[in-house]
Amino acid sequence: MPNTQQAMRRRNLSLVLHAVAAHGPLSRASVAARVGLTRAAVSTLVDELIRDGLLVELGPSRPGTVGRPGSALQLNERGPAGIGAEIGVDHLAVCAVDLGGRVRARTEVASANRDRTVGPALARLAELVRQVAAEAVREGLRPAGLAVAVPGLVARDSSLVVRAPNLGWEGVDVGPALRAALPGLPLTVDNEANLGALAELWRGGHDPAPRDFVHVSAEIGIGAAVVLDGRLLRGTHGFAGELGHVPVRPEGPACACGGRGCLEQYAGEEAVLRASGLSPEQAAAQHPGPGGRIALLAERAADGDRRVRRALDGAGEALGIALAGAVNLLDPRTVVLGGALTPLAPWLLPALERELALRVADPARSGQGAVTVSRLGSDGPLLGAAHSVVQAVLDDPAGLREAAAVTGSGA
Amino acid sequence: MPNTQQAMRRRNLSLVLHAVAAHGPLSRASVAARVGLTRAAVSTLVDELIRDGLLVELGPSRPGTVGRPGSALQLNERGPAGIGAEIGVDHLAVCAVDLGGRVRARTEVASANRDRTVGPALARLAELVRQVAAEAVREGLRPAGLAVAVPGLVARDSSLVVRAPNLGWEGVDVGPALRAALPGLPLTVDNEANLGALAELWRGGHDPAPRDFVHVSAEIGIGAAVVLDGRLLRGTHGFAGELGHVPVRPEGPACACGGRGCLEQYAGEEAVLRASGLSPEQAAAQHPGPGGRIALLAERAADGDRRVRRALDGAGEALGIALAGAVNLLDPRTVVLGGALTPLAPWLLPALERELALRVADPARSGQGAVTVSRLGSDGPLLGAAHSVVQAVLDDPAGLREAAAVTGSGA
Repeated sequence: MPNTQQAMRRRNLSLVLHAVAAHGPLSRASVAARVGLTRAAVSTLVDELIRDGLLVELGPSRPGTVGRPGSALQLNERGPAGIGAEIGVDHLAVCAVDLGGRVRARTEVASANRDRTVGPALARLAELVRQVAAEAVREGLRPAGLAVAVPGLVARDSSLVVRAPNLGWEGVDVGPALRAALPGLPLTVDNEANLGALAELWRGGHDPAPRDFVHVSAEIGIGAAVVLDGRLLRGTHGFAGELGHVPVRPEGPACACGGRGCLEQYAGEEAVLRASGLSPEQAAAQHPGPGGRIALLAERAADGDRRVRRALDGAGEALGIALAGAVNLLDPRTVVLGGALTPLAPWLLPALERELALRVADPARSGQGAVTVSRLGSDGPLLGAAHSVVQAVLDDPAGLREAAAVTGSGA
Repeated sequence: MPNTQQAMRRRNLSLVLHAVAAHGPLSRASVAARVGLTRAAVSTLVDELIRDGLLVELGPSRPGTVGRPGSALQLNERGPAGIGAEIGVDHLAVCAVDLGGRVRARTEVASANRDRTVGPALARLAELVRQVAAEAVREGLRPAGLAVAVPGLVARDSSLVVRAPNLGWEGVDVGPALRAALPGLPLTVDNEANLGALAELWRGGHDPAPRDFVHVSAEIGIGAAVVLDGRLLRGTHGFAGELGHVPVRPEGPACACGGRGCLEQYAGEEAVLRASGLSPEQAAAQHPGPGGRIALLAERAADGDRRVRRALDGAGEALGIALAGAVNLLDPRTVVLGGALTPLAPWLLPALERELALRVADPARSGQGAVTVSRLGSDGPLLGAAHSVVQAVLDDPAGLREAAAVTGSGA
């Protein structure tokens, strides 16, 4: 019985909230026209959304203005907040965004999480989450949930990190430690490439945002997310998007995954450093802190270092070969290069686009515009995590009240 | 305004029809319970479906039976028929299926369509369509539409064959010639791998049918279809599923598509014949008619011919490499080997499964059951074409009446 009255009301609350999110400020009459409900029905829904602290009324329009009678509605900037967190290989980050998607609090610390005992890393992250949530509360916001980006495979609809090879984590349930940071609030855990793609979909600054794309991301390993018709493809087990293990040269070097010649062996951060004749220690010495390896590569490439440029050209070629397969299979509108790879785009793109043009026969799918570079850069996964919480609120505002009832933290 | 009353009625007609299709014979009361509508509403909808010749009433249940009062409803075996057609490289085929999916008429002729002038091939196909439609009418059926399977790229929602390299066709609109065969009825044209996948989804004899799979098909070239959550992935331009041009060895032999080392260069019918030391002429002489090359390869492999077995092992390996990439990207429940490849499965599978196990790290996605062989074999695309017409009727039975009104061929 999917069409009960209550389900309909829940859906309509979301319709109204989405209309204001996308087009606000809007009068009640404009909302009614956009969502196709009566003015009376919309008023009841709006009252409920105002009571729950999701919408605010800007007051009657200024005297003398024409055409927008009544007071205008907009998203409450002091309403629910999405808390996003990121577990990187060499950093931890947390941010809070409001309903409109603006970042209202943020922190990032260097943290060598690789092969570190899991407990301390998660305890540190939980502490940062509490700090940022407290800052959001000081800003007048109410944390509505936490989403965490992880550079690895996460089992679908769970907080279980099945395998994050570049962290050295396997079968780690991050739920218990992180749930304690925001008791009673929903927690979701997802692959960093997936969340980066969601950030692209919502706030990438594209106009209009592409609804079918492959989003390539990197955090030492190489991941990808496939977005089809505006929805993230998760796969049967939640493991879709493992571009890093697509075979590029089947007889190539052995990979940690057990295969040979995987993309990661040609375009992963370590492979590129090695091919450039650089060591992780050099990178750490010259560019301490998160992102040091990428920064060193970008600096050397910009300086015209021929070995680094050759290494990046090889990485771009391998990316192009693997992505040609993906494009032939999926026929996406575009390929988006995001995450840590964005600073290297100038040296990766020529070979990448050359391979795509060679191997994707159809002119509509290669050539100009076949690849775009994300404007969010390495911020994508963190922002995507926070946005995913806000999106859940917009999709089901009534669910928020239920959560509040459980935690006793009502509006 | 998506929820007008009329749209709701149309949707409910489809709900009722689908319930009977999936679970019939059913009483009106059982239908009402299944679809969550009142008994009265269901009765009105059922009356309309009976009037339109989609459902029939079996008469009151036998005296003495308990628990199923009233007469039982089932799909009309003398109702609408889906006409499916297939343009193969060396054959043409047409069939008619009833609402229940049973094949009620069928014809297949050898026809060397490769590089043949398009006109005569399409004229011959139109003639076969008329014959099979006439036979369906003699069986008491009413043709409801025509769907055509083509071994090539078809532009989304059109009858334009953009490129069918193995037919030598480029930019051919098959619409005008084929629409004339069944004037006034809807025509759809689709890639053969897509339609083969739909046949698998609906009538593959799996229990339960997989809803997320990659369906690999072959008709000289190699195609694939990606089914996600029970829906065919079409891609932005309608070109998704081009597995044949996924790079296997990037420096490999040049391909007609402009790329190098594409899967088709290792596992396509011609590549396998060549690697086996056999010629198309030998195949034609020893196994005249459609499917002769595959038949010759299967015969030799069964006889223990070592060169043929080695060639098939190499083809299986290349399929495994390309599919490992697809599985890493899409995380499907299973891979289905279908189309003309099925008779060769015993010799392709060992190497194919070995490569998948090596290159897909997650145990849930490789090993036992990672690949299944279609029970439909090379019939898949033709049956899928006919089923797709029936599916359109089940999805919108009211659309059928509108079409009838246009053609003047009402129930």
